[in-house]
Amino acid sequence: MDVGYHSYETESTQTAGKVITCKAAVAWGPGQPLVIEDVQVAPPQKMEVRVKVLFTSICHTDLSSWKGENEAQRAYPRILGHEAAGIVESVGEGVEDMKIGDHVIPFFQGECGTCICCRSQKTNLCQKFGVNPLKSVMVNDGKTRFSTMDGNPIFHFLNTSTFSQYTVLDSACVVKIDTKAPLEKMSLLSCGVSTGVGAAWNVANVQPGSSVAIFGLGAVGLAVAEGARVRGASKIIGVDINPSKFFKGKAVGITEFINPKDLDVPVHEKIGAITEGGVDYSFECVGNLEVLREAFLSTHTGWGLTVLLGIHPSPMLLPLHPMELFNGRQIVGSIFGGFKGKTQLPKLAEQCMCGTLNLDEFITHELPFHNINEAFQLLIEGKSLRCLLHL
Amino acid sequence: MDVGYHSYETESTQTAGKVITCKAAVAWGPGQPLVIEDVQVAPPQKMEVRVKVLFTSICHTDLSSWKGENEAQRAYPRILGHEAAGIVESVGEGVEDMKIGDHVIPFFQGECGTCICCRSQKTNLCQKFGVNPLKSVMVNDGKTRFSTMDGNPIFHFLNTSTFSQYTVLDSACVVKIDTKAPLEKMSLLSCGVSTGVGAAWNVANVQPGSSVAIFGLGAVGLAVAEGARVRGASKIIGVDINPSKFFKGKAVGITEFINPKDLDVPVHEKIGAITEGGVDYSFECVGNLEVLREAFLSTHTGWGLTVLLGIHPSPMLLPLHPMELFNGRQIVGSIFGGFKGKTQLPKLAEQCMCGTLNLDEFITHELPFHNINEAFQLLIEGKSLRCLLHL
Repeated sequence: MDVGYHSYETESTQTAGKVITCKAAVAWGPGQPLVIEDVQVAPPQKMEVRVKVLFTSICHTDLSSWKGENEAQRAYPRILGHEAAGIVESVGEGVEDMKIGDHVIPFFQGECGTCICCRSQKTNLCQKFGVNPLKSVMVNDGKTRFSTMDGNPIFHFLNTSTFSQYTVLDSACVVKIDTKAPLEKMSLLSCGVSTGVGAAWNVANVQPGSSVAIFGLGAVGLAVAEGARVRGASKIIGVDINPSKFFKGKAVGITEFINPKDLDVPVHEKIGAITEGGVDYSFECVGNLEVLREAFLSTHTGWGLTVLLGIHPSPMLLPLHPMELFNGRQIVGSIFGGFKGKTQLPKLAEQCMCGTLNLDEFITHELPFHNINEAFQLLIEGKSLRCLLHL
Repeated sequence: MDVGYHSYETESTQTAGKVITCKAAVAWGPGQPLVIEDVQVAPPQKMEVRVKVLFTSICHTDLSSWKGENEAQRAYPRILGHEAAGIVESVGEGVEDMKIGDHVIPFFQGECGTCICCRSQKTNLCQKFGVNPLKSVMVNDGKTRFSTMDGNPIFHFLNTSTFSQYTVLDSACVVKIDTKAPLEKMSLLSCGVSTGVGAAWNVANVQPGSSVAIFGLGAVGLAVAEGARVRGASKIIGVDINPSKFFKGKAVGITEFINPKDLDVPVHEKIGAITEGGVDYSFECVGNLEVLREAFLSTHTGWGLTVLLGIHPSPMLLPLHPMELFNGRQIVGSIFGGFKGKTQLPKLAEQCMCGTLNLDEFITHELPFHNINEAFQLLIEGKSLRCLLHL
């Protein structure tokens, strides 16, 4: 599909500073099919950017928000979506690192560049634009940039709201990448692939020759595998109850598969038996406390590190005893793979362009934007890794 | 008190290879006063060492074992004690790194030097001689080296059993130190001081200019403070409900004190207010889950690290939600401060000799061995940090 985005610059000069009417997929209530309808998108304010979204895809966080699983996070009508790639339509006052026509990736875990966290090399949190699922308006004025055709506000989501042909983001939540990077694949860097690859690179710091176990082989889990493969891990064990994931897993470097349903012992015992007492790193990409515990126990005592990527329901406690930490196993959480979006995503995009990182396996389906509800079903049924929607 | 240990060598040649009868403090049941009585100590077997204990002190792990708090760990009669310093009386077959007359420190977290953990730089666990509170006999033959005068076995404790004038240890659990090191202070390196200092140095890796909060100002907590002081931490906050600890704390570099009883807000809020949002490192030296949670929340989001040193009762779960790990705070356990005893204790002893590390504050009382029950009371009542017993 030729979306003609290289000829975009002339077009945008006609819309800058004006309200744009475009199509968006609006969520009107928990679990209700999204409605593709006309919405109004206001111009970007100070330090904001309006982006023409060319490609977007769906991640499990969109799913859980769409279902309204956490009541406190519900806000309707709302434009979900946080994985995308697009082109800058216009920029607000003060934005100097992006201009009309730039190719960009939005990202939910912002980077203001000036807070104490952004100034630290130890974290990718941001005190001003960090991810906050309760947030549904812009920081500048506490209002939305989206509205219905009759003027009622439509709420934002995860600093991004990419299920719209145009969206407005804080400039801290969008970054310019090389114009030669394939934009359709770049949407993967908005969340899933970065989250997985970064967990292997930045959070676990997987070393050559090490062993890895990945629990849950969705896009994030497979991205962990890709990251571990690039780092030279010698053993990459994939764990999933859906055997259809295994074929795809081989392509991203998974060396062994375990289907817990095929075992008559706990997964960690099996992993302990096929490694020298446990893996060096395990990754929980499911969001399930029993899986978390298996992932923890699957690592080697003394140095095993478990990285949490899955989103877990509150208010459950970690299923670990304090004394279990004394065996030298560690557990850490990770958001967006530890990547600082502004600082590091352009380099990550380059690594995709030059083939260091291979994204070929992650887009399993492509559909026009108006088929977004079908794309949701593909993800829910475990049939797709990522379905790329063309806006 | 002159114990005359420099003239020890000639004496030992008369006892090597023979059973020694000496005084020990024997635990006959949970919470019962220890009984100072004659016991028989068999010669060391292959890769074992018999040590004349000159000084010993009491740690909280001795207390909880004495009370029999964990029923599974009970074994009577037993010789407790794991902090000590002494002199090699004789060595078993194959021991090459120690000889009669060497000054030595026993340590409960052994180092065999050959297992996968000992070969790793990432951990001080040892698969063969790691601490195991259930273990009460020697590895070589599953028997005890201690017996009553009528020949019944007396059980070992934590690889050490130092409440005896003579004890037998696996050579993996005892290390030679410089003869010029002051042996009475060296007993502190057997557990408490090493555990605290090592938590700051090896586990947290406290950096110059950083901020630290220490929960619980017993000997271990104060040793953390000393370790943080040596590393150049600029803010060292001590937290304890016993204000008498504060005077001692100043001497080891604590810069601010918090008594939770004086606050009308949770401790972590107070700490957040007097730091820029939280400390870089917190240390839980109490073994209490509420304290653990306060220690965790007292660190800064993004990079805060909480180190667990306190012993917690099972089977309680960690009072943390999985999603709380996503704020970038980490929590790790530590045993023996991450020190590999064989490899690192001699250097630590040197650092005490040259004044890098100051142990002057830790021995608050000295008593003859036969007053051991009085020494227990001093610790129970929070009056002593360490009471040094002279054997």
